[in-house]
Amino acid sequence: MDTISGISPDLLDRFAAIVGEGNVLRRPEDIAPRLVENRGLYRGASPMVLKPGSTEDVAAILKLATETRTPVVPQTGNTGLVGGQVPRGSGTDLILSLERMNRIRDVDPVANVLVAEGGAILADVQKAAEGVQRLFPLSLGSEGSCRIGGNLSTNAGGTAVLAYGNMRQLCLGLEVVLPTGEIWDGLRRLKKDNTGYDLRDLFIGAEGTLGVITGAVLKLFPQPIGRQVALAGIASPADALRLFEKASNLCGTSLTGFELMPRLGVEFTTRHIEGVRDPLSEPHPWYALIDISTSDSAETAETMVHALLEWGLETGLVRDAVIAGSVAQQKALWQMRESMSDAQKPEGGSIKHDVSVPVSSIPLFMEEAGKAVMAAIPGARICAFGHLGDGNIHYNISQPVGADKAAFLARWYEINEVVHGIVLSLDGSISAEHGIGQLKRDELARIRPTIEIDLMRRIKRAFDPANIMNPGKVVAIE
Amino acid sequence: MDTISGISPDLLDRFAAIVGEGNVLRRPEDIAPRLVENRGLYRGASPMVLKPGSTEDVAAILKLATETRTPVVPQTGNTGLVGGQVPRGSGTDLILSLERMNRIRDVDPVANVLVAEGGAILADVQKAAEGVQRLFPLSLGSEGSCRIGGNLSTNAGGTAVLAYGNMRQLCLGLEVVLPTGEIWDGLRRLKKDNTGYDLRDLFIGAEGTLGVITGAVLKLFPQPIGRQVALAGIASPADALRLFEKASNLCGTSLTGFELMPRLGVEFTTRHIEGVRDPLSEPHPWYALIDISTSDSAETAETMVHALLEWGLETGLVRDAVIAGSVAQQKALWQMRESMSDAQKPEGGSIKHDVSVPVSSIPLFMEEAGKAVMAAIPGARICAFGHLGDGNIHYNISQPVGADKAAFLARWYEINEVVHGIVLSLDGSISAEHGIGQLKRDELARIRPTIEIDLMRRIKRAFDPANIMNPGKVVAIE
Repeated sequence: MDTISGISPDLLDRFAAIVGEGNVLRRPEDIAPRLVENRGLYRGASPMVLKPGSTEDVAAILKLATETRTPVVPQTGNTGLVGGQVPRGSGTDLILSLERMNRIRDVDPVANVLVAEGGAILADVQKAAEGVQRLFPLSLGSEGSCRIGGNLSTNAGGTAVLAYGNMRQLCLGLEVVLPTGEIWDGLRRLKKDNTGYDLRDLFIGAEGTLGVITGAVLKLFPQPIGRQVALAGIASPADALRLFEKASNLCGTSLTGFELMPRLGVEFTTRHIEGVRDPLSEPHPWYALIDISTSDSAETAETMVHALLEWGLETGLVRDAVIAGSVAQQKALWQMRESMSDAQKPEGGSIKHDVSVPVSSIPLFMEEAGKAVMAAIPGARICAFGHLGDGNIHYNISQPVGADKAAFLARWYEINEVVHGIVLSLDGSISAEHGIGQLKRDELARIRPTIEIDLMRRIKRAFDPANIMNPGKVVAIE
Repeated sequence: MDTISGISPDLLDRFAAIVGEGNVLRRPEDIAPRLVENRGLYRGASPMVLKPGSTEDVAAILKLATETRTPVVPQTGNTGLVGGQVPRGSGTDLILSLERMNRIRDVDPVANVLVAEGGAILADVQKAAEGVQRLFPLSLGSEGSCRIGGNLSTNAGGTAVLAYGNMRQLCLGLEVVLPTGEIWDGLRRLKKDNTGYDLRDLFIGAEGTLGVITGAVLKLFPQPIGRQVALAGIASPADALRLFEKASNLCGTSLTGFELMPRLGVEFTTRHIEGVRDPLSEPHPWYALIDISTSDSAETAETMVHALLEWGLETGLVRDAVIAGSVAQQKALWQMRESMSDAQKPEGGSIKHDVSVPVSSIPLFMEEAGKAVMAAIPGARICAFGHLGDGNIHYNISQPVGADKAAFLARWYEINEVVHGIVLSLDGSISAEHGIGQLKRDELARIRPTIEIDLMRRIKRAFDPANIMNPGKVVAIE
């Protein structure tokens, strides 16, 4: 008595009974938005969305899933960029949405920790921290809709990694429901705890394939007192690297952002994004967006930004620069950077990469990748931008003007191979911050040593013997 | 044809042939120093020490060990404090010493990384960093003899964790030989790399039970430009906590050390350690050792330390204070703190704990533990000191004056239970930085949820199917 999906109606009812019918989506039109991701690269199928209200609900769902070998895809904000949160096309995967588990369980400004449920929206966590004069530094374009469980499961990065680290560094403890339905309470609030294998870091970045993160202890920081944001016009990525080195030496950990942007990206954003304008009077080949935050005084940030830019102008590394004169201007400069990916959309298809190389290799990477891409697709418009200080470039390529979008996008994997080949020759990573998901699973298996993939498989089998937990993502289990 | 050790002479010869007879220790008197650890708590037995010269040697040894089910204990500086590096008493364990693999493979001041072999001595790594005007911040009392492989395997902490993190945060990539003899080359130099499960952090802190760390990519930092070290006399741990909070707010990440010391510890060190003197004219119940390092200018550090102490004196939190006037004086202040454990030795037996609690719970912990210990052992001399800023206290208890040392030390586990009970009631950790080894293995299994120990066992079995890799440490495999 199978349905189209391969899961019997009886079994679906048993899953629904755990959360109650009011917390289940069954109608195709209700389920549909959960089946596609942002870029439209992946489109899955699923007979049911389950919305548990508690850790115990999640445990009961996964226990039944393991018993009945029913695949489950955990989903939070559905903002992932590698298809990790999208069910497979087979229609066999249930979607487990954490959207109801969105509470902030505790905020403790003395201990500088916040405890959030896996479905808490990142912006709500930021606000809860602000409410007690603290900073939760993770900052992403999607912060209004992405959720903590997904941020942890993808080890999210964003624009503040330089000073504060990525999600792995921002988490002290986890609560995880295992695929077998057991609950691991690892909600510790300790800075130092050397008691056995590091389970926490194993679940972080596992993209929901080893369990479901239902709660997390997150680190809070003092709110910066001084802040300065500047935009500098520069000649090349090599010059940007030199400016970054000087900024690091001058500012130390007060350098909270150093982003690289190409002229093309500035043109795209000023053309397509409302409110974005180029504050410099002349165009420059490249731009550095510099963010300095200080905890001692506002004057320190001011002194630092002036010292840096004066040095840059004197040495000729900086061709022109502007310092934001207000919080509104600071936001406007950051908006240019954060809308750069969106600004590519009206320009047609975009083939994207999320790569990292050792910071010192960025100029070489840019040069070699640029040559190879232009040779493969004459007229391609490279809009490579990103977190220079982390060695992380979003190497996006907009289609040539007037080209056929579908034909251009059909070359996605071919161009990936070209760019990733250069990345690997420089000992870089094919996924700096977005993860593996479906998009890069097979490529990862190709480029990494056999033993590495084999160890991942051994862990997956040890944690998820029935292979029900987001199967088909990160690493394939035959 | 078994020997006493249970390993046949033929098999020993096969192991010896891998590294060559010149790199093998067989005589009991040569092996003896490798069988005991610093405190004399553990004394093991072993028929042979193997000193491989290369990663390939290590791989060949472990391959043969898995094939023949021969247990292997990796050993680096033999400075561990929980018996993790000591072979079991059964005499069945071979010792694999990394002492010959002590090279610095690469130092790159532009990328701020250093690549060291697992047997490189920590002080040599620090020196290599200094040679290119960089800082490798890990700093421990045993830095002259402990080695990087051990530092990583125990996720070493030390005195600079506050600003730089522990070993986990200082490592970008690893080379590990698996128990099966396969080599995992994970020597990446990337700040961001989200490509599958976090194998690196699984090996870090695994105390050599999942594989042997033969190489590591370590992070370097700019050398601080300004540095100030101060000693403040204070009334209580609660006052120390308030001073720490002020220091954190004033200095941010420039606060590179904040250590708490009791009057008794100051008395012990001035009495027993050459060159240590109390620089304050009156005695105080507690002391805070404050270290400030700045990357922008020397003046910043000076401004910070004066602002902090002036605030402390004005509010009455600080009863008296001294700022080191020279590098020699800075060293002298740190020597007091670093020799505090050694200074306990002439005072008789010491029952030790390495615990952490949420930073804000330190005063409560000190109070409750003090009461409980004094009730259990009237006349006990509590010498609790440590990394207040990390919530990590070395809760050491010297025997009452004139007590019988053996009878006092016989109460080790009983007193551990008393202190750890209070730690656990405050959601703390029974091992903040020393690890589990043999000392705390069974206690860990008792206090942690069954699922946590079970997950560790699953990982151990998946990585080390023959259970040859430092067996009996961290987690018991029946």
